[in-house]
Amino acid sequence: MTNVMNRQILLASRPQGPVTENNFRLVEQPIPEPADGEVLIRNEWLSLDPYMRGRMNDVKSYVPPAELSAVMVGQTVGEVLQSRHPQFKPGMKVLTPLGWQLYGVAKGSDLTTIDTTSVPASYYLGILGMPGMTAWFGLNEIGKPKSGETLVVSAASGAVGSVVGQLAKIAGCRVVGIAGGAAKCDYVTGELGFDACIDYKAGRVFDDLRAACPAGVDVCFENVGGEILDTTLRLMNRFSRVVVCGLIAEYNAGQPYGYTRLRSVLVNRIKMQGMIVFDWKDRYAEAREALARHVIAGKLKYRESVIVGLENAPRGLIGLLKGDNFGKQLVRLA
Amino acid sequence: MTNVMNRQILLASRPQGPVTENNFRLVEQPIPEPADGEVLIRNEWLSLDPYMRGRMNDVKSYVPPAELSAVMVGQTVGEVLQSRHPQFKPGMKVLTPLGWQLYGVAKGSDLTTIDTTSVPASYYLGILGMPGMTAWFGLNEIGKPKSGETLVVSAASGAVGSVVGQLAKIAGCRVVGIAGGAAKCDYVTGELGFDACIDYKAGRVFDDLRAACPAGVDVCFENVGGEILDTTLRLMNRFSRVVVCGLIAEYNAGQPYGYTRLRSVLVNRIKMQGMIVFDWKDRYAEAREALARHVIAGKLKYRESVIVGLENAPRGLIGLLKGDNFGKQLVRLA
Repeated sequence: MTNVMNRQILLASRPQGPVTENNFRLVEQPIPEPADGEVLIRNEWLSLDPYMRGRMNDVKSYVPPAELSAVMVGQTVGEVLQSRHPQFKPGMKVLTPLGWQLYGVAKGSDLTTIDTTSVPASYYLGILGMPGMTAWFGLNEIGKPKSGETLVVSAASGAVGSVVGQLAKIAGCRVVGIAGGAAKCDYVTGELGFDACIDYKAGRVFDDLRAACPAGVDVCFENVGGEILDTTLRLMNRFSRVVVCGLIAEYNAGQPYGYTRLRSVLVNRIKMQGMIVFDWKDRYAEAREALARHVIAGKLKYRESVIVGLENAPRGLIGLLKGDNFGKQLVRLA
Repeated sequence: MTNVMNRQILLASRPQGPVTENNFRLVEQPIPEPADGEVLIRNEWLSLDPYMRGRMNDVKSYVPPAELSAVMVGQTVGEVLQSRHPQFKPGMKVLTPLGWQLYGVAKGSDLTTIDTTSVPASYYLGILGMPGMTAWFGLNEIGKPKSGETLVVSAASGAVGSVVGQLAKIAGCRVVGIAGGAAKCDYVTGELGFDACIDYKAGRVFDDLRAACPAGVDVCFENVGGEILDTTLRLMNRFSRVVVCGLIAEYNAGQPYGYTRLRSVLVNRIKMQGMIVFDWKDRYAEAREALARHVIAGKLKYRESVIVGLENAPRGLIGLLKGDNFGKQLVRLA
């Protein structure tokens, strides 16, 4: 490995509005050496997620912002190359917080070993990773769908939305997705088994949603925000729940959206609650097990959207924030 | 009583924007006769409440709209004059849904007898009535204040807000009110014992609120909405709660307010929940008893704002919706 260099993508500047490739910088560095208690990993998959947009801003959020000129933040799965920690041996597959780089050194305590005997390693970045757990806890702890209720989920073909909708179907709900374009909507109804899917790009969200939800909306699992959330609020039933999981529509906008339907929260006694999956980190194992059982039994379908090569990660994130991805967005690094 | 006529105020037209006196019509009618199971009541006090503005619109809400050319809706307390229901005798004081009129006939099942041995009858329209119960259930069931937390309540000198703040003080909170004008703010801190009160008319709500809440806001009990709620959202802590009890700022506006701080709900995992006191109607007795104990013990102070004469009720409601009242707004009818 003496001649091999590490490649890293740094956060070069903070975006003003939409993210551009100029916000990133690719650099080469020597591959680091693990110190005592550390592990050297070769990353195989990098996860791209909507939360990354928030981290690129220099504002107070649920975690500190990504630092300028530091490796861009993100989760990876990779293989242990060299270990100075007793729990890890070369060849083991691990989930890491190493971010946008080909190699990296992490403390053993920051790594999670993953079991790839029944599912591919990349699933630990998606349906068995943060997105899957976000769906699981947001739905079960806040949305609390009851059989016969109607659930609406935005970004329905995405890593979180696709799991939310399928879990709600298993729970006996009528499930209506919102996605961008006919291909995604066909996938959501045809493959994932949702009862209906609204193409927000067709520009008739309110009419289409009303037609798809004849009994109103009992649970709104919101990944997008902006006009989609404001419109859904018009159709919410009494004692309904809004899981505020993501407001991706706001991340790229220069101005925050002005929500005009908050009166529905009062009139319909809606419970609207924000969530960050970290709040349930002590219970990840429980969710991972339950989700893995469904995946192995074929009850949860899952789709990945793969970009090859670290240098293409910025383009991948930019596309994800515009909704260009189709399924969980990954970058193949090795 | 042969020569005495009933006087009624009818809803003459629905307001477009702010309520005007032209939306009402005063008429005289013969005093009605009770049928079997009914009771004739002479109203003594009429309650004026913010919810009435909503009832004047012809839109779906938590109760049907008030009907045009019908007696304007509202609660009263009055005295039984004549009874054809076994539970009621002349001279008894009752809580009624008879609305804006001097006399009325109600079914016995729509009446509640009230105990005026320790508190005045009018209290059953305020601190021991819907406003008091709204404060009690909204605070205890949704706001759930813990000792040491900071609570902010808008319309702080009003019938609901004054009770919310005093109950939160009893629970060990730092309590900050928002009210209009120095006189109300002085009352809120001097008489009601809140820790601070922001005068929203001074035009520095964000700066003043931030200064008054050095540890942020854990519970927002929202009676007003609009800019006050949007501003408070900027100061909410992680895992904080917003009780959406009233959005009076929106009732009179031609356009709904555009809330720009919903991202705070996500980032801070805020629980925002709408409430209507009717949802706890099976538990009114429990709240009334607890509140009465505090009132009799002198732990809950309470202020009434009295207008005399049915013909002045429209002016009273218009003033209430602009925040002109100081304490619970009542109309003395007899």
